[in-house]
Amino acid sequence: MRKEYLLTPGPTPLPPQISLAMARPIIHHRTPQFQEVLKEVSLGLKWVFQTNNDVFIISSSGTGAMEAAVANLLSSGDTALVVQGGKFGERWSEIAKSYGIIPEVIDVEWGKSVSCEEIKKKLLANPKIKAVFTTLCETSTGVDNDIAAIGAVLKDTPAVLVVDAISGLGAVDIKTDIWGVDVVVSGSQKGLMLPPGLGFICVSPKAWKLVEASKSPRYYLDLRKAKKAFDKNDTPFTSSITLIIALNEALKMMKSDGLEYIFKRHKTMADATRAAMKALGLELFAPTAASDGVTAVKVPQGVDGEKLVKTMRDTYGVTIAGGQDELKGKVFRIAHMGFIAESDIITALACLEKVLTQMGYKFDLGASVKAAESVFLKQ
Amino acid sequence: MRKEYLLTPGPTPLPPQISLAMARPIIHHRTPQFQEVLKEVSLGLKWVFQTNNDVFIISSSGTGAMEAAVANLLSSGDTALVVQGGKFGERWSEIAKSYGIIPEVIDVEWGKSVSCEEIKKKLLANPKIKAVFTTLCETSTGVDNDIAAIGAVLKDTPAVLVVDAISGLGAVDIKTDIWGVDVVVSGSQKGLMLPPGLGFICVSPKAWKLVEASKSPRYYLDLRKAKKAFDKNDTPFTSSITLIIALNEALKMMKSDGLEYIFKRHKTMADATRAAMKALGLELFAPTAASDGVTAVKVPQGVDGEKLVKTMRDTYGVTIAGGQDELKGKVFRIAHMGFIAESDIITALACLEKVLTQMGYKFDLGASVKAAESVFLKQ
Repeated sequence: MRKEYLLTPGPTPLPPQISLAMARPIIHHRTPQFQEVLKEVSLGLKWVFQTNNDVFIISSSGTGAMEAAVANLLSSGDTALVVQGGKFGERWSEIAKSYGIIPEVIDVEWGKSVSCEEIKKKLLANPKIKAVFTTLCETSTGVDNDIAAIGAVLKDTPAVLVVDAISGLGAVDIKTDIWGVDVVVSGSQKGLMLPPGLGFICVSPKAWKLVEASKSPRYYLDLRKAKKAFDKNDTPFTSSITLIIALNEALKMMKSDGLEYIFKRHKTMADATRAAMKALGLELFAPTAASDGVTAVKVPQGVDGEKLVKTMRDTYGVTIAGGQDELKGKVFRIAHMGFIAESDIITALACLEKVLTQMGYKFDLGASVKAAESVFLKQ
Repeated sequence: MRKEYLLTPGPTPLPPQISLAMARPIIHHRTPQFQEVLKEVSLGLKWVFQTNNDVFIISSSGTGAMEAAVANLLSSGDTALVVQGGKFGERWSEIAKSYGIIPEVIDVEWGKSVSCEEIKKKLLANPKIKAVFTTLCETSTGVDNDIAAIGAVLKDTPAVLVVDAISGLGAVDIKTDIWGVDVVVSGSQKGLMLPPGLGFICVSPKAWKLVEASKSPRYYLDLRKAKKAFDKNDTPFTSSITLIIALNEALKMMKSDGLEYIFKRHKTMADATRAAMKALGLELFAPTAASDGVTAVKVPQGVDGEKLVKTMRDTYGVTIAGGQDELKGKVFRIAHMGFIAESDIITALACLEKVLTQMGYKFDLGASVKAAESVFLKQ
């Protein structure tokens, strides 16, 4: 009889109407019926990606879409600038290396965002840099990078800007075309409120020249094949039919809310969560550049961070995320992206208070919930 | 109010209990709860793949798993023997070429199965051949290759045997370990009765040596990463959670039937379909080596093959498959794999008779249904 709550930065909970869309009888993917769905989805994706370029759908996790960006843009021996401020920034370097691409790394302290000055300096110092790989919302640290500013830095350079917006898309703003972002990759299980299994990638005309020139071996992730198929409302390989039908539902829901409202809703939940942590005397892991998609919080001294997350989940049914890699046990992360509502935040805060109390941490019971309520009331 | 029937060789219809499993609230993938599912699924996959080796799950279509086989086994400059008797045999060559691998091709006439003698000859003539790529059920032609015999040919050679069993697995027999098949790849949307979106691959110890030696660039499809994760009941990247939970249900259903019963059920439906075509005076595209998973039938003279398929689907709600590539308009294909039952075959035959009659083709009305009934009655 336990009610379960999911506040993780992917997967996020699914609206029931999306879950039920996946349970509909399956249709074949090479039919006019499915082509209609693909046509609608294509328009919806352009809208949510804020771009006029095609948004290709790959049956893969977000990492597959990241690899598609690397393999289609660059060849062995090329140099790329990588912003590394967390686990997912590091992934760009790992993928690049596996293709023989030389990553020039900007090591950003975890919990901070990248400095545009440093990007500018690196680009000036190394004219070989063909692409800059960065992250919109670095899920592992709860930090947003200033993509608009990075876009402005790159605008008059030959380098293309590639942004991992897996965690951010549909939660925080990314004006792809206006900000001059050449390539945006994303995944289904975050702001888009779907299960994992779909990767997305859009490519600007500037970046498409690199796609045509890349010598990296690729087949399944070959964007030239994707383009050829998409031009005919098709996918190059068998589509993940149920997920794409669910995506169509998700995009309709999002359209009826509007992007502005969606971003505001996420900001309100983030503000509430941040105020709540302050009220508990807890420290944010990223006090500046904190993302509106996920809040990372330092585990207070004397509290076992892994046990905290485990108890909330296994004893009380509230799943938040722990820390990853070097942050294991040192932070916990409360997501407020996708189909997460005020009520989920309140529930998670009350549960956090319960477990923190049981673990001997001292604070005024109810303080975090009260702080969140105050933020919500102001909206 | 129209009832829809799907008799295509992927996707196949989904049992309602599997559809509903996908509609359950999503759980997080890095939890003991999901690890339990992965553990069960791993055992079930070994059972259905008839192997003691790990069966890795990739979030991709079947083609992603095919590429995983190529990229993990071979490097640029290597030679591979490819059996090409249809669209999917050709795909092996295309993938190999995109990795700089030299495909030595056995061109099998479409509609025929490969001769083991020829494989033996090729292997003797070219000792550089590191791997043989072939297909269990060539979906495009409805032909099964004799994998047991090919396995026997390769047993004492250094070459590894790689089988695309995307269409065949769970419909026709493949005794992976007993027949000496080193690598089997498959997908979710055929005999496993799931939506598309999961690829599978198992690797023998003999083939694993090639995985460790391969220099092909790979990250998302890197089986070394997959193995490291699977050893801890995990996947290297975010799992397609809903599809894996559905897979668990499918494997339970299949286990309760047993493989022998499943293969017999498919054979009965195939026999019935073949007898039905004969009763209509139609010619099978693959009179020898016809697969029990899908029956390809020549479109009779004077009938527009594409219109036949389109009318059955768009006017009457019965979706069968047309021909692909060079067979476009020349064959139609009735699938009898996965969650397809006697009743579906009867419905499809009656609908085929209806449309053939409307298109002016002459035969005794009811003949194909009667022939199928006779086969079913004998079981």
